[in-house]
Amino acid sequence: MTEPEFIKALLEDLSGYVRERYGDRASVEVGSKKEPNDLLTEVDVEVQRRAMERIRQEFPGDVFVAEEEGMHQTPDDASCRAWIMDPIDGTQNFVRGLFPAFGISLAFVNSGSLQAGGVSMPMTGDLFLAERGKGAFRNGERLKVSDVDSLGYARVEVDLGPPSIRERNLKAAANILRDGGQIRCHCAAVVGICSVATGDMDAYVHARLSPWDYAASVLICEEAGGKATCFDGKPLDLFAGTTSILVTNGVLHRELLSELA
Amino acid sequence: MTEPEFIKALLEDLSGYVRERYGDRASVEVGSKKEPNDLLTEVDVEVQRRAMERIRQEFPGDVFVAEEEGMHQTPDDASCRAWIMDPIDGTQNFVRGLFPAFGISLAFVNSGSLQAGGVSMPMTGDLFLAERGKGAFRNGERLKVSDVDSLGYARVEVDLGPPSIRERNLKAAANILRDGGQIRCHCAAVVGICSVATGDMDAYVHARLSPWDYAASVLICEEAGGKATCFDGKPLDLFAGTTSILVTNGVLHRELLSELA
Repeated sequence: MTEPEFIKALLEDLSGYVRERYGDRASVEVGSKKEPNDLLTEVDVEVQRRAMERIRQEFPGDVFVAEEEGMHQTPDDASCRAWIMDPIDGTQNFVRGLFPAFGISLAFVNSGSLQAGGVSMPMTGDLFLAERGKGAFRNGERLKVSDVDSLGYARVEVDLGPPSIRERNLKAAANILRDGGQIRCHCAAVVGICSVATGDMDAYVHARLSPWDYAASVLICEEAGGKATCFDGKPLDLFAGTTSILVTNGVLHRELLSELA
Repeated sequence: MTEPEFIKALLEDLSGYVRERYGDRASVEVGSKKEPNDLLTEVDVEVQRRAMERIRQEFPGDVFVAEEEGMHQTPDDASCRAWIMDPIDGTQNFVRGLFPAFGISLAFVNSGSLQAGGVSMPMTGDLFLAERGKGAFRNGERLKVSDVDSLGYARVEVDLGPPSIRERNLKAAANILRDGGQIRCHCAAVVGICSVATGDMDAYVHARLSPWDYAASVLICEEAGGKATCFDGKPLDLFAGTTSILVTNGVLHRELLSELA
């Protein structure tokens, strides 16, 4: 099985499990991590456990990097083959949310370069898949970013994140918050970045994301014609820890970089 | 037919039409109103037209107040029977949005007092209904607000609105934006306020709403145990034009009022 085929099959499997648990989410065990609102559920942990097991069977020797359970160590050897996962991005929305704005995110990286990525939003049935150089697709339909070319008309996802990063996000995005045509905040990177890929949003901003938050959806967005960099315009480095990130439809990238503090 | 029965039947009918059009939304004609991003579609207009026709048939002589087509004049006679409608609240999300965060809102008012209200979110199948003194329901299931009692744990919808009201919203909610446990912005009042009713959010803030934006969902939220006032703590006045609005689960109301600028 190729890596893209594996991502598709695994996400389909895991989505069934997540749908089942979400259907009875009142019974899901919820705890918190460092911050009181940084929630972790038994579903996050189980999704990650199942993925790790399947990756170890199918691709023994590959590195596995993921958000939960102490698996967040990025590899020392930048030339390795690695899988980067967020079992549920948007856990708060999984636990509490009128709309199921969360997703499972899995990317395959070789020598530090994104090769394939998938995001599943189990409750809407949206499966996003991309392979480097081969385009991005939602449920088999090819994706293309929007062509909106000015901030005043743009729909921008400003991800305000948890309280620990809130002031930094509010400050960095102050001009965009004031002048953007429409501002949305779902606080789930996969939602914001995949929305740029589909053309539903024109840009996504966050002052501090981890690789598992953005790896898969950035490839999906790039393959749909979008662009993603750090706030200083430099390329994202998956193995350099947390990073600021601006994702746009490409056309807006230069204007939005200049608006970021 | 009683007014609550009429609201239920009409919203069910209109939702079928909206679902059909949303299914082929690329073909929907979209224009803009005063601001470039203040969108108006043929679907908004048609939903409102159908509702007005049905109300005139069923309740001749009642006043009809609605967002579009110059129907936004509030009645001079405060003792009248009136229907207040937003045909689609969240039109931007109807036109562009990964999640269908919009709804049809209809309220019945007698002598300035909300008597019955309904909100339909056609694409999720959620039908919210409330009658004064008789509770609030989603698809027949009784609703109850959350019991979250501190801002640091709260999920707060800060509705940043269009650019014309953006600075006022950013300024009024500055403390809440900084200190809220989780911040969301869907820019659809029905989504924010009904989320408080279901307990998915704990509060909703907007510096300037019109009656059609909040009438139905405020009754739904109050009947679920929540509280809604202006920023100065005074009761909302449906016929006094635009207003600031804070909606909470009740427990948080005093703390959040003190945080508003």
